[in-house]
Amino acid sequence: MALIECIPNVSEGRRLDVIAAMADAVRAGEGIRLLDCTSDASHNRSVFTLAGTADGVERAVGVLFEQAISAIDLRAHRGEHPRLGAVDVVPFVPLEDVSMAECVALARHVGAAVARRFNLPVYLYEEASTDPSRKNLEDIRRGEFEGLAAKMATAGWAPDFGPSTPHPTAGATVIGARLPLIAYNINLATDRLDVAQNIASAIRQSSGGYRFVKAIGIPLAERGIVQVSMNLTNYEKTPIFRVFDTVKREAARYGVAVLESEIVGLVPSAALTAAAEHYLQLAHFTSAQVLEHRLKQR
Amino acid sequence: MALIECIPNVSEGRRLDVIAAMADAVRAGEGIRLLDCTSDASHNRSVFTLAGTADGVERAVGVLFEQAISAIDLRAHRGEHPRLGAVDVVPFVPLEDVSMAECVALARHVGAAVARRFNLPVYLYEEASTDPSRKNLEDIRRGEFEGLAAKMATAGWAPDFGPSTPHPTAGATVIGARLPLIAYNINLATDRLDVAQNIASAIRQSSGGYRFVKAIGIPLAERGIVQVSMNLTNYEKTPIFRVFDTVKREAARYGVAVLESEIVGLVPSAALTAAAEHYLQLAHFTSAQVLEHRLKQR
Repeated sequence: MALIECIPNVSEGRRLDVIAAMADAVRAGEGIRLLDCTSDASHNRSVFTLAGTADGVERAVGVLFEQAISAIDLRAHRGEHPRLGAVDVVPFVPLEDVSMAECVALARHVGAAVARRFNLPVYLYEEASTDPSRKNLEDIRRGEFEGLAAKMATAGWAPDFGPSTPHPTAGATVIGARLPLIAYNINLATDRLDVAQNIASAIRQSSGGYRFVKAIGIPLAERGIVQVSMNLTNYEKTPIFRVFDTVKREAARYGVAVLESEIVGLVPSAALTAAAEHYLQLAHFTSAQVLEHRLKQR
Repeated sequence: MALIECIPNVSEGRRLDVIAAMADAVRAGEGIRLLDCTSDASHNRSVFTLAGTADGVERAVGVLFEQAISAIDLRAHRGEHPRLGAVDVVPFVPLEDVSMAECVALARHVGAAVARRFNLPVYLYEEASTDPSRKNLEDIRRGEFEGLAAKMATAGWAPDFGPSTPHPTAGATVIGARLPLIAYNINLATDRLDVAQNIASAIRQSSGGYRFVKAIGIPLAERGIVQVSMNLTNYEKTPIFRVFDTVKREAARYGVAVLESEIVGLVPSAALTAAAEHYLQLAHFTSAQVLEHRLKQR
């Protein structure tokens, strides 16, 4: 059965009753499971992780838009995380028996539907993007809600769907399709922030590193160490093990050891299996040899 | 749902019609899947891999015994693999939502049932064993079918269930419970058989190595290399990565590199995840973070 993941980011992380009502509404739907819901008060933002059929995901997203648009007024919204809309970003991710092309088609279909239903501007991003200069979420979101009206009036920033001016309280939404993203951190046995920052700069795409790595160096003050904090946006093409080995080698150049690494949230089993294959030098290995996969197939 | 694996080894690997009939009979059962059936003509032996509920597995095993006992006469059986009975060995393995204790109980229940139904001696082994000196399959099978009558007359070798003399054509069966076994080989970039044999000796339990490793060194003549061929009988306590690292280090002591390793047949996902955790130095990782596990839970 085709299974699609969807991770709507909603601009409300403080009013827990509002968030709980959204979670309940999602759970009440057919063909959908709410895998996770994480709210952050300082970000004033909640991240819902859903999985289900194309129909189930589409209905759940519609319900979330309905509730978010009625409950959230971005004119009064404050939080550390950049945001453009009440429902800020909605990525669709292929999980099982579904192609990226199908997720792209779903993103465009849902984008057109919510734009029409809520009279809301929608931008398509990542794999669903129709314009190379609007592929990257950060580029679309730059200026945030407060700068949106001016941005939309600029050449090249008409939305993919919906009106050419912001929704008065709900701003705009960015909808798209992408591979599963892995939030991956490597902690270094040092308090030297410059080392973490230099390594982050060495491995991230934006400054010459790996194609599918976003990275920053940050202090973990309470532990007296530093961290290279990353998003791996395509674990098939830029695998975890290569990033880990590169960070380790770069750290050694400063006489610093890797203390540990950590995966934040969920990770596809294949991303871990690939690391095992690499380090164990496994030859001729196929995922059909994983007992749990075989059990599912028959 | 509780899911048990069962891997009956049947002493017929040449008459493909007989084997196909057994496979069909297993497939026709309720609550059971036949994951794999591998026959080896030189061993004259077939290995069935089943998975199902306790009831489903028990019924399938009963059907296999019925067919094997009617089709196989061990007095005329020749093959390279040691064997004691028409159905030679039947291990039960906990897969999902089932404990080792439940598999032990099932092994004893099935052992008593087939002993009664077919008037067949049954020995319990591994976790289901009732006697420490009869825990190991090789010890129970030593002497094979041809030496069975004499062995059974010896003190300490009365069976756990059934008559005190062999079944005339079907010998005896060894039934038990164990963890999944991983068939794991490491190929060395050398043709020096002594190196593979020395390493096998260093890592296997019987000569002082790891507790849950069985290993031999063999030549892969057609490729001009040698192999350390292993069974890992408890991947939780003696994990793949530790075995791999030790073989690599021992090989380096002879100036030999590891060419590759290989997993033969099926491997539990957790055994690979553990290797990823180890090499990536993952901290605070739990299997609940694996996306596929999360999907199954809700």
